[in-house]
Amino acid sequence: MYKFLKEEAYEANMEIKRRNLAIYTWGNSSAFDPDKGVFAIKPSGVEYDSLKPQSIVIVDLEGNIVEGKLKPSSDTKTHQVLYREFSQLADKSVRGITHTHSTYAVAWAQAAKSVPVFGTTHADHGIQKIPCTEFMSAEAVKNNYELETGKLIVETFKKNNLNPVHNNMVLVAGHGPFTWGGSAAESVYNSAVLEEICKMAFLTLAINPAANPLPEHIIKKHWERKNGQNAYYGQ
Amino acid sequence: MYKFLKEEAYEANMEIKRRNLAIYTWGNSSAFDPDKGVFAIKPSGVEYDSLKPQSIVIVDLEGNIVEGKLKPSSDTKTHQVLYREFSQLADKSVRGITHTHSTYAVAWAQAAKSVPVFGTTHADHGIQKIPCTEFMSAEAVKNNYELETGKLIVETFKKNNLNPVHNNMVLVAGHGPFTWGGSAAESVYNSAVLEEICKMAFLTLAINPAANPLPEHIIKKHWERKNGQNAYYGQ
Amino acid sequence: MYKFLKEEAYEANMEIKRRNLAIYTWGNSSAFDPDKGVFAIKPSGVEYDSLKPQSIVIVDLEGNIVEGKLKPSSDTKTHQVLYREFSQLADKSVRGITHTHSTYAVAWAQAAKSVPVFGTTHADHGIQKIPCTEFMSAEAVKNNYELETGKLIVETFKKNNLNPVHNNMVLVAGHGPFTWGGSAAESVYNSAVLEEICKMAFLTLAINPAANPLPEHIIKKHWERKNGQNAYYGQ
Amino acid sequence: MYKFLKEEAYEANMEIKRRNLAIYTWGNSSAFDPDKGVFAIKPSGVEYDSLKPQSIVIVDLEGNIVEGKLKPSSDTKTHQVLYREFSQLADKSVRGITHTHSTYAVAWAQAAKSVPVFGTTHADHGIQKIPCTEFMSAEAVKNNYELETGKLIVETFKKNNLNPVHNNMVLVAGHGPFTWGGSAAESVYNSAVLEEICKMAFLTLAINPAANPLPEHIIKKHWERKNGQNAYYGQ
Repeated sequence: MYKFLKEEAYEANMEIKRRNLAIYTWGNSSAFDPDKGVFAIKPSGVEYDSLKPQSIVIVDLEGNIVEGKLKPSSDTKTHQVLYREFSQLADKSVRGITHTHSTYAVAWAQAAKSVPVFGTTHADHGIQKIPCTEFMSAEAVKNNYELETGKLIVETFKKNNLNPVHNNMVLVAGHGPFTWGGSAAESVYNSAVLEEICKMAFLTLAINPAANPLPEHIIKKHWERKNGQNAYYGQ
Repeated sequence: MYKFLKEEAYEANMEIKRRNLAIYTWGNSSAFDPDKGVFAIKPSGVEYDSLKPQSIVIVDLEGNIVEGKLKPSSDTKTHQVLYREFSQLADKSVRGITHTHSTYAVAWAQAAKSVPVFGTTHADHGIQKIPCTEFMSAEAVKNNYELETGKLIVETFKKNNLNPVHNNMVLVAGHGPFTWGGSAAESVYNSAVLEEICKMAFLTLAINPAANPLPEHIIKKHWERKNGQNAYYGQ
Repeated sequence: MYKFLKEEAYEANMEIKRRNLAIYTWGNSSAFDPDKGVFAIKPSGVEYDSLKPQSIVIVDLEGNIVEGKLKPSSDTKTHQVLYREFSQLADKSVRGITHTHSTYAVAWAQAAKSVPVFGTTHADHGIQKIPCTEFMSAEAVKNNYELETGKLIVETFKKNNLNPVHNNMVLVAGHGPFTWGGSAAESVYNSAVLEEICKMAFLTLAINPAANPLPEHIIKKHWERKNGQNAYYGQ
Repeated sequence: MYKFLKEEAYEANMEIKRRNLAIYTWGNSSAFDPDKGVFAIKPSGVEYDSLKPQSIVIVDLEGNIVEGKLKPSSDTKTHQVLYREFSQLADKSVRGITHTHSTYAVAWAQAAKSVPVFGTTHADHGIQKIPCTEFMSAEAVKNNYELETGKLIVETFKKNNLNPVHNNMVLVAGHGPFTWGGSAAESVYNSAVLEEICKMAFLTLAINPAANPLPEHIIKKHWERKNGQNAYYGQ
């Protein structure tokens, strides 16, 4: 029944491996169908080499397993919260989420630093800092860790007045990146872009600790030419 | 009609991918025919894996599409300005241009720093700093961003008394590198060399923040033995 | 007679190469059979490309060669001490050991620094700093270098009240990492994880020299969800 | 006539490429026959992909081409001086030399810093700092650049009382590494080892700017167990 959704999720998960965004089982992608209110997600702890489309698990927005024999990713509740909150805000446009432990993105998350917009590579994909959350409180961890991770991301976006349509990357402090997009494939694309942005930002500061963010007018120009109403990048 | 020019541009674009100078679609090479006054350039936003010689677009020096069904690279006007200005200065010898988002070159561009001549790897390919432009003004961005990027590069060369024949690499502040050469292949070779020079220069400063540039007499020797009138490097 | 044990050790040694944890011959894995009191280990100085299961050497806990025509790894006595001390402490659960010269782990060992728990990637695999030993004394080096390396690791664990079941990674100051686990495969998995943790920790401090360790409540949560009694990660 | 010597040099040059010690044509290996007083070296500026054993050039210790249609490497005179000086000192045991532009070794050369013995990876291959020469004087450059490069290396060894048998790596300030050994293969092995040592040393200082060199007694132990009279590493 959910054959295409499973295949979409499967392909995105395999792309995590192909792009070297995680070693072993450290990452997961999901694909969301807003009409059916379910998403397809990687099973927990399964190696990419032995992953198959039919091992993908279907979960609804309350966290119930709708289809699948395996346990879904331990991060499933984080995906669930983000679909519930961000997909509505974004008029159902968030249809894929990816979480990885890619090296440079994790380093910024461990440093607990938001990533400034240092260049057009970043501005092509977002007009603001890539936000880093606070560290989760002991109470929230105790309550429901993965669900609270989703809430923490949502709060971080609210507090910083960030629109999840235009900002589709976040760093969870001490943990790592989550990214989303219009499809599972787009979310893993954003994970690869984020990793590159994080590497470039690290090197920028290493070369010039006083490096300035890109001027606002260049940030807006690059965002607009690729994502604005009169975008002229691509075919 | 422009079969060979398209194939030359196609090969250079594929080399961007083979040399890991850009992920996804983030780079473009062009090949110039100064007699016909046209250049062949990558179409905008097309993945390297699906690129074909026949998808390459032919553009003239006023920016008119001469042949091709796809939209040319969004950076086309920058190539156009550089061919117009530099190829004349260089007696038609600039016949290829490459733009990438290679990691270390972008980091220096984001740091808004010119790259000092720290060693013979650099001196074999240029006798001066690799210049970094100023950040573009809001007015220029508003006017005609990609055309102004070309002008900014040309101005930077004039202001620093740089000869585009002997200096074929530049960093656009906050953006990334452009390189050129006697053919599209040579321009992408220069992009790969620049990336290596930028990585070495970053590491040099990390090891010794007080590192001195290479003495002038060694810079000149290396440049001359590879590029001078009595060059004796190669066959 | 020791066919399976040799094959297990062989596979782990080949994984060192596949995971780029050592160049040339710079690493060794062993597999332990606590019932027979012997372990299978890589022969000394043999390239991974020419290694075969039958070249693996069987050694007992007194260091006697039980089977095999080649000389065992020069680090054999270190493995021997760790099996003798840690496998007992850990109720025979230490059944594999790996030593590599992986780049980032060696760098931390050369820096003579323990690796703080900066993130969940680390906490998923251990709840404490990855300890770095003291530099070995001249007397110990003179006495029996490789045996003393094992003793130094054991002492470091005692001094820091570390349990080798929950902490299966160590850095020997000025030398490099040793890791262990429930099988040879698990020990080399831990070597790969350690290398990634060490790279992330280096980058974390480079981005934020004042980076704080992960709060205790998050460390425990991640450890518990993957390794605790009520672990729910994986199938 | 020099078939085997050419093949030895050819294999070592190809290994430069396989080990990623140089991009394009930036490196050269040679193989020396002390009885015939000639060495086989890479032709200048030839890509590794098009290199063949028969393109290797045979040169004598006065720099005369004995056999070969192509021009030898532009660095030939440096090899010549090192064979003349070091092979005699070392009782004909220097039979191969390699020069690369490997990234981390070049960075240390550009930083004009000798590489301290920070760990056993280094001590397994040398008991002293990897020396970095002074920058060459204008007069020497003018005189005979490549010959003077060889002399500069020899002087650096004399000034620092280094024995070329026990120390087979050097950094030429602002340029890059030269290594040697008992065969061309050994010299390129030493180039790969040097690159790894240089990367580890860079990271060591980045993690701990006050890192101490390895204590003398550990340096000696590691050198002895691999290279001393009673060496017990390997078969």
